[in-house]
Amino acid sequence: MKTKRIIILGATGSIGLNAIDVVRHNRDSFRIVALAALRSKEKCEELAREFGAKAYAGEDAALRAVEENEADICLVATVGMSGLKPTMAAIEKGMDIALATKEVMVMAGELVTKEAAKRRVRFLPVDSEHSAIFQCTRVPNTEIDKLILTASGGPFLHGPEDLSRVTVAEALNHPRWKMGPKVTIDSSTMMNKGFEILEARWLFDVGVKDIEVVVHPESIVHSMVTFKDGATLAQLSPPDMRVAIQYALSWPNRLPAEREKLDMAAIGKLTFERPDPVRFPCLRLVKEACEKGGCATAVLAAADEWAVKNFLEGKIGYTDIAKKVEASLEAAPEFPCDSLEAVWEANDWTWKHLSR
Amino acid sequence: MKTKRIIILGATGSIGLNAIDVVRHNRDSFRIVALAALRSKEKCEELAREFGAKAYAGEDAALRAVEENEADICLVATVGMSGLKPTMAAIEKGMDIALATKEVMVMAGELVTKEAAKRRVRFLPVDSEHSAIFQCTRVPNTEIDKLILTASGGPFLHGPEDLSRVTVAEALNHPRWKMGPKVTIDSSTMMNKGFEILEARWLFDVGVKDIEVVVHPESIVHSMVTFKDGATLAQLSPPDMRVAIQYALSWPNRLPAEREKLDMAAIGKLTFERPDPVRFPCLRLVKEACEKGGCATAVLAAADEWAVKNFLEGKIGYTDIAKKVEASLEAAPEFPCDSLEAVWEANDWTWKHLSR
Repeated sequence: MKTKRIIILGATGSIGLNAIDVVRHNRDSFRIVALAALRSKEKCEELAREFGAKAYAGEDAALRAVEENEADICLVATVGMSGLKPTMAAIEKGMDIALATKEVMVMAGELVTKEAAKRRVRFLPVDSEHSAIFQCTRVPNTEIDKLILTASGGPFLHGPEDLSRVTVAEALNHPRWKMGPKVTIDSSTMMNKGFEILEARWLFDVGVKDIEVVVHPESIVHSMVTFKDGATLAQLSPPDMRVAIQYALSWPNRLPAEREKLDMAAIGKLTFERPDPVRFPCLRLVKEACEKGGCATAVLAAADEWAVKNFLEGKIGYTDIAKKVEASLEAAPEFPCDSLEAVWEANDWTWKHLSR
Repeated sequence: MKTKRIIILGATGSIGLNAIDVVRHNRDSFRIVALAALRSKEKCEELAREFGAKAYAGEDAALRAVEENEADICLVATVGMSGLKPTMAAIEKGMDIALATKEVMVMAGELVTKEAAKRRVRFLPVDSEHSAIFQCTRVPNTEIDKLILTASGGPFLHGPEDLSRVTVAEALNHPRWKMGPKVTIDSSTMMNKGFEILEARWLFDVGVKDIEVVVHPESIVHSMVTFKDGATLAQLSPPDMRVAIQYALSWPNRLPAEREKLDMAAIGKLTFERPDPVRFPCLRLVKEACEKGGCATAVLAAADEWAVKNFLEGKIGYTDIAKKVEASLEAAPEFPCDSLEAVWEANDWTWKHLSR
């Protein structure tokens, strides 16, 4: 495999650090040319020295890292909305996008996939669910019948009965994955899974009605694809985000790695259940936003970002998160979604609406 | 997809009839040119009339069907050893082999795979386990770490404790699949799974030590492949042998089919356990035969065929099956396995040895 040049946006977050670990073990295959971090300037500079890369820190670090460097792959692993502009810039420069920041697709999926198609740039999914689907599909997507996204179910799968009294500490206590606070809260409400539906809709060009969510608490099966002939392929591994990250970087090759081996007999059983629509209203809100079209999913993402921030700051209750999102979707005017400016307009409208 | 011409050997058995059902639903994609059956002459002729194909019945029907017709794919679904000569003949005529008769690989895997490579002929697996692996692997096999064959466990997975008193009726009562008597008994002893190890060894060029068997009573996951980067792909479907048959015929395409959809939440759980080496000694015997090399696996297959026949006729007990196989392997002289004649010599030696 030819050495691939890589830019990492969000280098000091959990995805970024795991990606760096992958590169550290495959120095012949990957070369990091630039690292960008929003806050951890010193850590970013230390890592840049290790790899002989350039370091960028601060508010516009990600965008500058893309604009001032050439690379084969841009790994977008920033938090929330901030990944959108640098992703668009990287596409315009012809870089393939290893995508961890699902908000890019939630807010502007139609826009970025169109631009990527125009520039013949590929999206290489990093989310374990989408990597699973990507690994299962090397065939024309006309043969796909449905996608089955698995969900761990998070900390509130079966209890407590009254979710309105959930504390921040309880909501941050995810049973399976260690992640940042925003995505951990989103996992507990299943809004994260809803975002993944939207991400899958654009990554794999499959209608939302053909994307199913199934709760799978063991998080061994990362997702599945059912084909029109009745066969289903699933991708499995012990929970380790480096598997998906490395595949996004090494695709279409696989690189040997020392990882915990899957031992099915030791695992013993895998369980699956339907998500409870009453406990997890966010899944319904995502489908409604998608039906509404235009920038409704950008309003959804913005309202969720506002609500999670306010929940983490103790200003609203846990069940208010879905309520604020639903109210925003109902109140939002129709925005077309044909430019980055329109996406930001929808975002700004939502924050103003909720902060009144 | 260009219409593929197909010869079906073993047309009136369960695989054959399911294959015919697949063709019936995809008449633009497949054309049956010849059908061969060992015994059911009238049924075979009736089916041949339906498809405008030639019918062959009797002892040498399969071989004549291959010799007197041209086709793109020869589906080998005869019982036991009888598939070997027609398979070799079909390879020599340049036909791809859709393989259901695992004895072909058990007895002469090295021979037929060499011949197929020489003629640039492909093996398209029909066994659901091998179809699963085939569907999971479209990458160079250097990237494969191990194959995981799933096994239903059969009727005697956990009971009765004393297997020596098992009756023919009990052994024929397979919990999952309806199949012929030989393969049903082989499933109950797990000799069938052992044969599948040998089949996989030759189909996918993976060493026996890198092929694992895991018991999975629900028979939803048909098999898995673990790659060197730690990712595992699995192929799933409700138990329906037409999925694997159709894929072997349509590969590399998939054809739409009305099949029961996989509903993971309704299935609820999938379980996995290690096979018990005391209850299922045949798995060990297979690995020993493989280590011995030469025609030892042909002796194994012949001894099993003799033992199952004699068990079905009430002449030996259930646990004698493995004992007869083990005794034959111990007593057998070393045969090289470099010709069809050598394979038949090993077979004949075994039958004479056991019938003394």
